[in-house]
Amino acid sequence: MAAKTPSPVSPLAPAGGFPDLPRIDGVRYAAAEAGVRYAGRLDVMLVEIAAGSSMAGVFTRSSTRAAPVLWCQEKLAAPAGSASNEGFGIVVNSGNANAFTGAKGRRGVVATADSAAKALGIPADHVFLASTGVIGEPLPAERITAKMTFLRDGLDDGAAALAARAIMTTDTFPKGAAARIDLDGVPVSIAGFAKGSGMIAPDMATMLVFLFTDAAIAPDILQGMVDRINAATFNCITVDGDTSTSDTLLMAATGKAAMRPVTDPGDRRARVFQKALHDVMLDLAHQVVRDGEGATKFVEIRVTGASSKSAARKVGLAIANSPLVKTAIAGEDPNWGRIVMAVGKSGQRADRDRLSIRFGDILVAENGWVSPGYAEAAGAAYMKNDELAISVDLGVGRASATVWTCDLTHRYIEINADYRS
Amino acid sequence: MAAKTPSPVSPLAPAGGFPDLPRIDGVRYAAAEAGVRYAGRLDVMLVEIAAGSSMAGVFTRSSTRAAPVLWCQEKLAAPAGSASNEGFGIVVNSGNANAFTGAKGRRGVVATADSAAKALGIPADHVFLASTGVIGEPLPAERITAKMTFLRDGLDDGAAALAARAIMTTDTFPKGAAARIDLDGVPVSIAGFAKGSGMIAPDMATMLVFLFTDAAIAPDILQGMVDRINAATFNCITVDGDTSTSDTLLMAATGKAAMRPVTDPGDRRARVFQKALHDVMLDLAHQVVRDGEGATKFVEIRVTGASSKSAARKVGLAIANSPLVKTAIAGEDPNWGRIVMAVGKSGQRADRDRLSIRFGDILVAENGWVSPGYAEAAGAAYMKNDELAISVDLGVGRASATVWTCDLTHRYIEINADYRS
Repeated sequence: MAAKTPSPVSPLAPAGGFPDLPRIDGVRYAAAEAGVRYAGRLDVMLVEIAAGSSMAGVFTRSSTRAAPVLWCQEKLAAPAGSASNEGFGIVVNSGNANAFTGAKGRRGVVATADSAAKALGIPADHVFLASTGVIGEPLPAERITAKMTFLRDGLDDGAAALAARAIMTTDTFPKGAAARIDLDGVPVSIAGFAKGSGMIAPDMATMLVFLFTDAAIAPDILQGMVDRINAATFNCITVDGDTSTSDTLLMAATGKAAMRPVTDPGDRRARVFQKALHDVMLDLAHQVVRDGEGATKFVEIRVTGASSKSAARKVGLAIANSPLVKTAIAGEDPNWGRIVMAVGKSGQRADRDRLSIRFGDILVAENGWVSPGYAEAAGAAYMKNDELAISVDLGVGRASATVWTCDLTHRYIEINADYRS
Repeated sequence: MAAKTPSPVSPLAPAGGFPDLPRIDGVRYAAAEAGVRYAGRLDVMLVEIAAGSSMAGVFTRSSTRAAPVLWCQEKLAAPAGSASNEGFGIVVNSGNANAFTGAKGRRGVVATADSAAKALGIPADHVFLASTGVIGEPLPAERITAKMTFLRDGLDDGAAALAARAIMTTDTFPKGAAARIDLDGVPVSIAGFAKGSGMIAPDMATMLVFLFTDAAIAPDILQGMVDRINAATFNCITVDGDTSTSDTLLMAATGKAAMRPVTDPGDRRARVFQKALHDVMLDLAHQVVRDGEGATKFVEIRVTGASSKSAARKVGLAIANSPLVKTAIAGEDPNWGRIVMAVGKSGQRADRDRLSIRFGDILVAENGWVSPGYAEAAGAAYMKNDELAISVDLGVGRASATVWTCDLTHRYIEINADYRS
């Protein structure tokens, strides 16, 4: 199959390009051209993670989860982690999602895991897998396993940028983020990369996230942090409201830093680390939105005055997923009536007569009606910005949430309708 | 404000045009040009309903309901109906939805109801109101009340087609449907019309439905029928997943036919009538989808093998609302992987390894994988049809549901983004 013409880089891509990620002691990366679907591009990555590391993960809740997701969930549920004397591996391919492929899909997973296990000298159930690309076609695992020795021989602790490129599909730029912090005098690093360009198309746009640190954190503490932060970052972004069969986030903490392990969630260092990890994950989540299919606007939606955090998030997502809100934003139309509509359809409690809406700092609506001081021209001028903040106060409580999305443009239709896969 | 250029009639519009609706004894219609927002078009309708009629209604569940919706719900909740010696009225305007207009909105409602009540010689709380159009601007009720005498003088039992035209906004064709049935030897008619061109934009595309019959049906029986049928018709269509602040369905049964009133839901005539009313409401619901903004495909989605009817409907709507499914349909792409994704994201139980998918009669996927007999060329040829049937069996139970939708095209973006209201 011929490669499709690459899309131009999203106008919302970070100005600086892919960041210079810190090397993480105990983690090495490699990438290769395996020709899973397209020739002439990096499409498989291998990560080697040192023995003694803690692993954590978050996965799609889709009931039609892909074979590699089911595999990862099984392996993470087993008692592994820092007690282990053996290392871990991660193998990811693009071009084929190995989703909805029945027993054949499972066989492809087992073959890939066995091959990586042999190359890295670890048990197969220490190998985590993710696949992204077309669904319904069995993974040609032999193309990946044929490259395993090459991958192993190329492992390098400075090759994260290559790995980030190998997992791209419709992404228009690779996504990376890092933090360097100090935990009671010990320098520690976090490096992460992600792919995703739709929240989330099963067809060439699934979200994958990989995070690495040299900090020493017990597996249960690490998993708890990842769960909490995920709820406020990757679970608060939406491009099109669709949910992938393959969404996977994996994190490894190698414990190579010269620190006493964090084993208590009340440890002061856990809070410092969690804050840094939050910033890295939020940065990557925002980059996924900035690479949303066809996106020309990056939109933050802040909901306050809700009866609960969950209600606030649901209202935020109802606004962020509304095609009418998203097309109005694409058209730079300060159509606050569509925000009122989306609040109303969310099914959450709101007080119509206390509802207020702001575009940036501009008070648009209050007390159940357009604000007396609001001028349509000011709203229209604001909507011309590339980055928008829409604030809604529901007037019923004190809980809040923030979600992020992009606009819905002709380019989204072109990417998803005009191109025949 | 200048009128926008009218859109060409939807390619999916019924071939025969607006049907010849039966006259309903006890119901008269009128329409006028009130200039609510645009000059030079019918934009207000008045319906007079004879004393002794039963009234029933269904309304949007939005928490930001418009002022006329709140009014109708209050009035219907009061004990009225066939015991009354006074008639009813319905006043509907297009151009302004009178939504999110606070106390001013309520005053516009009261002024309009008072004016219609005086013209028709009935109490104001027997006047039902609906408004559709832009939101956030107070209804210029004086433009409607100024036309009330003109409207009353023009009441005519043959003017339903004019009334159907007066309530249009972005609709590209007026929508009507009728049934003529025999209830134990007594001929009875049902006439209905609707507007809607988005499910459902608050801005110029709200769904409104008005139904009339000369059958004699007690109010509680009528309300029960309308609720049940609505759940399987208007609540099973979606254009864009958005929910209006103003959706309103009103039905009047005048009891002018020479029949003993239906007062028992077990009455055989109730079943015959309900079947006919179902057909009329389904026809109108389908016409709303056929006039979906930018629609080029009419799509029926049948979900079987579900654990409950509600689960089946949720899966159906998850498929019908998925931008990725809808853009694939627009692109005539038999992308069944996106159906698998939508089933997975619905949150409902499905057995991945028993799931089957059909395009028309073509078995596409079964037993957790693409069907061995499926040829992509057959799927691609099928997708070229204007009317598509997608069937999904979840493999976990015996419940089923059917929903209807249209595709998501460039024209939808043009209507909702490129046009500045």
